[in-house]
Amino acid sequence: MITHTMQAFDEDLHKLLRKLVDMIEMDATQIRAATDALVRHDATVAAQVIDLDAKIDEMQRDVEEEAITVIARRQPMAVDLREIVGALRIASDLERIGDFAENIAKRVLLMDDLRIPQVMPRFRHMAQLALDQLTKVMQSYVDRDAARAVDVWQCDQEIDAFNLSLFRELLTHMLESPVNITYCIHFLFCAKNLERIGDHITNIAETIYYIVEGHRISGQRPKADLTSKDQLPLPV
Amino acid sequence: MITHTMQAFDEDLHKLLRKLVDMIEMDATQIRAATDALVRHDATVAAQVIDLDAKIDEMQRDVEEEAITVIARRQPMAVDLREIVGALRIASDLERIGDFAENIAKRVLLMDDLRIPQVMPRFRHMAQLALDQLTKVMQSYVDRDAARAVDVWQCDQEIDAFNLSLFRELLTHMLESPVNITYCIHFLFCAKNLERIGDHITNIAETIYYIVEGHRISGQRPKADLTSKDQLPLPV
Repeated sequence: MITHTMQAFDEDLHKLLRKLVDMIEMDATQIRAATDALVRHDATVAAQVIDLDAKIDEMQRDVEEEAITVIARRQPMAVDLREIVGALRIASDLERIGDFAENIAKRVLLMDDLRIPQVMPRFRHMAQLALDQLTKVMQSYVDRDAARAVDVWQCDQEIDAFNLSLFRELLTHMLESPVNITYCIHFLFCAKNLERIGDHITNIAETIYYIVEGHRISGQRPKADLTSKDQLPLPV
Repeated sequence: MITHTMQAFDEDLHKLLRKLVDMIEMDATQIRAATDALVRHDATVAAQVIDLDAKIDEMQRDVEEEAITVIARRQPMAVDLREIVGALRIASDLERIGDFAENIAKRVLLMDDLRIPQVMPRFRHMAQLALDQLTKVMQSYVDRDAARAVDVWQCDQEIDAFNLSLFRELLTHMLESPVNITYCIHFLFCAKNLERIGDHITNIAETIYYIVEGHRISGQRPKADLTSKDQLPLPV
């Protein structure tokens, strides 16, 4: 009887996991589409990304409802509850990642044409870093692989460093010519959105580690963003 | 016996509510301090805000642990579970609000001195709008006042509109003189952080409405941010 109940609970958890994997895949699609919209200056694709964001919000609410149903039906013990609360946390991070992709798409609609095209490959590269991290974090969740979660956690600084170097490049364009300023501001916020996507993937890695290992990753989160004056080229 | 259990459950919920109110108060303190640090260019206060952020993260984890304990101990029905999941959602939004205050403080540490002091009262004003919203959302939660939650939800566009007008002002300063550019970028991100704080307060209002009324607020969230081209003064 206990085995039967445990098996049913495992099936419930698996269903929850499946929903989260669907959300991750949806996020990946949105990140890819938003970056395409930006790089090719494609308003149609941007509008699709904006439309689809509601779907991700709905998926999050669905995970919440499912989690409530599982708890109410199975009345799991505290240790299993932790797993479900972890799933809620991950769903929340995935929903925000969708928002950041949507923000990029919204910016695309604000730009009249494509300027400073030479920075575009940088956005593709940065988005790819985020997508790679997202794939890794999904695998670590499915395989309950704490080591891989730590790997994701440690690699976030790569995206941060990339954002910083892009920031410097955009700053140069702004200083060169005032007509670039508004465009570069949009690009800065787009890069920031990709960097924030990286942060939320790191949050997910932390949650997965916690679910698998039962305690938090020790040490400071590795960062390479604007946290020290030395890194920022202030004009005099 | 049932009454006794229900009373114990109510006490548990009240304890959870108390923890969330503490988090709201901590957020308010952090928003106030971060704005002070920015406006008076005070690196000491900025460093304190950064230090204190870990405390808010800890408070969120504490709410999660408490929620798990309550569920495991009382095994509430689905409708009561919804209230607890709502509390987890609110804690997550409050934790992010803390992050945005910390981001402002981090920016302060990146600036060498105070430039364009004439925009500083605008930051105070914008922070005050957010603080007023935070107070209102706290009251709506404590009083389970759905009408007040709707009021908070509708007023967010005031912060968005303020951010847009500040954006325009900063853009003028950037176009006027290249030496202003880096500073103005910091200011833009600070303003964006305050705007995002407003967004998360709106999320909380939505969650409270859902907890009290059992269904979601209908209609589109009122927005006054950069979502249409007409609003943005693009330089030619």
